[in-house]
This record gives sequence, structure tokens and C-alpha cells, in this order.
Amino acid sequence: MAALDVDGLQRRLRAFADARDWTRFHSPKNLAMAVASEAGELVDVFQWLTEEESRHLSDENLQRATEEIADVLIYLLRLGDQLGIDFGKAIDEKIELNERKYPVDLGKGNSTKYNRRE
Amino acid sequence: MAALDVDGLQRRLRAFADARDWTRFHSPKNLAMAVASEAGELVDVFQWLTEEESRHLSDENLQRATEEIADVLIYLLRLGDQLGIDFGKAIDEKIELNERKYPVDLGKGNSTKYNRRE
Amino acid sequence: MAALDVDGLQRRLRAFADARDWTRFHSPKNLAMAVASEAGELVDVFQWLTEEESRHLSDENLQRATEEIADVLIYLLRLGDQLGIDFGKAIDEKIELNERKYPVDLGKGNSTKYNRRE
Amino acid sequence: MAALDVDGLQRRLRAFADARDWTRFHSPKNLAMAVASEAGELVDVFQWLTEEESRHLSDENLQRATEEIADVLIYLLRLGDQLGIDFGKAIDEKIELNERKYPVDLGKGNSTKYNRRE
Repeated sequence: MAALDVDGLQRRLRAFADARDWTRFHSPKNLAMAVASEAGELVDVFQWLTEEESRHLSDENLQRATEEIADVLIYLLRLGDQLGIDFGKAIDEKIELNERKYPVDLGKGNSTKYNRRE
Repeated sequence: MAALDVDGLQRRLRAFADARDWTRFHSPKNLAMAVASEAGELVDVFQWLTEEESRHLSDENLQRATEEIADVLIYLLRLGDQLGIDFGKAIDEKIELNERKYPVDLGKGNSTKYNRRE
Repeated sequence: MAALDVDGLQRRLRAFADARDWTRFHSPKNLAMAVASEAGELVDVFQWLTEEESRHLSDENLQRATEEIADVLIYLLRLGDQLGIDFGKAIDEKIELNERKYPVDLGKGNSTKYNRRE
Repeated sequence: MAALDVDGLQRRLRAFADARDWTRFHSPKNLAMAVASEAGELVDVFQWLTEEESRHLSDENLQRATEEIADVLIYLLRLGDQLGIDFGKAIDEKIELNERKYPVDLGKGNSTKYNRRE
């Protein structure tokens, strides 16, 4: 059910940019900046909340978070389109890398190890 | 073909975190921070490149960009899971909002308007 | 005692970049990206810590935070140099703006107001 | 002339937060988030500009950039205050580290080396 139609969305976003003559602004460099600036807005939703409050967002904050997550995803979809990246494959490979890097026995409850992830 | 199995990936990432006892670190607040820190690493790939260079990445930089995009997606998937967000719906609504906000006639080739998006 | 010699540091950073032929990479656009990518590394230090833990950093994390703060400052100094910005004046004006925006009586203990700062 | 009165500004920002009962929100973790979210707004000013345009900002964009730089600095000042960091010393040490890491002969005009800075 909850599958994301990456191809269809990228086509739609491409048409959206083309119709407005914005494609020339959408270099990978600029799109990476847009991802970061939207990620900054996402952080803005949470920065004065406690972790506990962040688990029980008000309707208003949930709406804001949802919109900022959508914005980050939209620019990631554009960026992946421009760079020809296969999201499913990229995520699979990263999860497999993490599974090798953080074996279950060693990592259990150890945030330090997690934090030192690179 | 290029559909992302959001449900399946979220299940897998949930199991990954649970097995390592990391779920308690994965408050929405912390996951939003992780999205921003990975977005910062994505920007790091592009910051000294020209826009033109960013359109023709070396194999090494494409690999780095792919991994950072995967990292941002992974934390977004976790965050969306914790907040119960429907990605497809969120993106659709955001695109529709943008279509109303930037009608084709007015926006054509106008980056200023784009920039003032909020 | 704790005054920052902005002019002297900017001269030194300019010489550092010039000696390495890096000045051509230091457009304001690129330096803004560098600020964001270092800010992402700063967030990385704190993302799995509780707020309480962040108030009592280990020596190692304090060292990491100090280095990332220095990195953000270094790129801000370069950016301010390129744009000709007077930091003291800019901060003064922003504080005065905030004093008008958040009068003491209304803002007391109200993080929501704070959060809605723009 | 252009020295920044770090002590004085930190005292003023501390009083500002205390008067509004906001100090309890200002954990190092939250302040690091605020730095990142303001850095995201700084990136937002530049993301659709070319590098060349970023060297010749319009008055409006220069004003926006100045305000966002001030915001990043304000939260860095608060964060440094909470963590007891000596900015001048931290920057000096980081520049010295960079001087050892990127000797002039090797680094000349080499952005790749720069990029691989950690």
C-alpha cells in the first residue's frame, strides 16, 4: 500500500519545473542546498520541544513537520532524478553497510558507537 | 519499477533499531537532527564544485552523494514512521500547494518568486 | 578579555586561502554551504544525547563541539569578509529587533511564541 | 576596530533569555539545532543564485544574508556561553590544525584535498 511512486513523482516535478522555466536553477549543487535549507526548517519545528513533546506533536506542529518532510523529499526526488540515483538500491546498500558496521551484539544500547558512525 | 517500498523499508529500519536497542534514541526530535546532519554531509559533497561540475560528478563524488542521499532518506523514513506520516499524500498536497502558489504564467523564469516561497 | 579580533582573523583567513589558491572557491554561495555543512557536523555531536547530557558533555564531545563551533565561525568570518558585513552591528540590530518582537511580558516562558519567530 | 565583544554580547543574550524565562529551552542540544536551522535560512538566501550573483548581492539579499548571519552568530554565542568555550582560542587552534593539514605546497588550487578535510 504505502509505496512511493518515485518515477511518477519525478516526472511530475520535472514537468512542474519545466513549465516555470526553473529547470536551469535545478543543478545538483543547488538542489543539495535546497535539501539542507528544508532540513533546517524541519529542525526548526522541533528545536524548542523536549524529546517527549516531539513524540506527541500538536496538530499544528504535526502539520508543519509533514510539510517540511514533504519539502525535503521533493528536493531529494529532484536531486535523485538529476543524478540518476536509484533510491531503493541506494537505501538497501546503506542498510547493508550499517548492518556490517554495527553488528547486533556490539551495538546494543550503545549510542556512542552509533554516533561515531563514520 | 522505481517505486519505493516505504512500508517494507520502515519495517526493516524499525527492526534494525530495535535489535540494537536504539529505538529509545529515535525520538522525532533526534531524527529531525539526524536528517539535518546528513543533509549537511550532502552539501559537503557539492560545496566547492561549480554548478556545472555538479552536473557531471566524478564516480567518487556520485558515490558519496548517493550514500548521503540514502542517509537522509533513511532518517526521513524513520521520522515518518514515528510520526505516522503518509509520504505520498504529503508530497501530493505540497505539490498542489506549490501549483496554486506559483501559477505557470507568473513564475516563468523568475527565481526571485521561487525563492520567496514562504 | 573575551573580545574576538574579527579584522585580524579575517586577514589571517584571507591569507590562508590566498596562499592555497582557494579564494576562487570562496564565493558567498559556497561559503554559505560550508557554514551549513559545519552546522550539520555540530548537530551530529548532539543528536543522540539527551538535553541533560548535552549540558554535561564528556571531554571528547566538548572537544568535538568546540572544533565544529570553530569551523562554523571560520566560514562565517570568511563569508562576512566577502560580503563586507559588520558583525557587531548586525548582531546589535538583530537583538533590538528581537526585543521589539518579543516584549518581556508577553514572551515569558512561552516557547511557542519564540518558535514562531518569523 | 572590528572586534566583537563576545563577553558583553553573551551577557546581553543571557539577560534577554532570562527575562523571558527562555533559558530552560537553551540546552546546548537545542542551541545546536537553532544554529543549524538558521544556517539553513542562510543557505536559502543563496540557493538559486549563481556564484557570480552571490558576489554581487542585491540590497535586499544582502540584508537577508546579514540577518541570517546575525542569527547564526547569536545562537553560537549562546551555545559557546553554555559550554564555556573560548572562541578566539578555538578558532586559533582550528586554523593551526588546518595549516598543518593543508601545507601550502600541496594544497595549491586543489579543491579535492580541501573537500576531504576530515
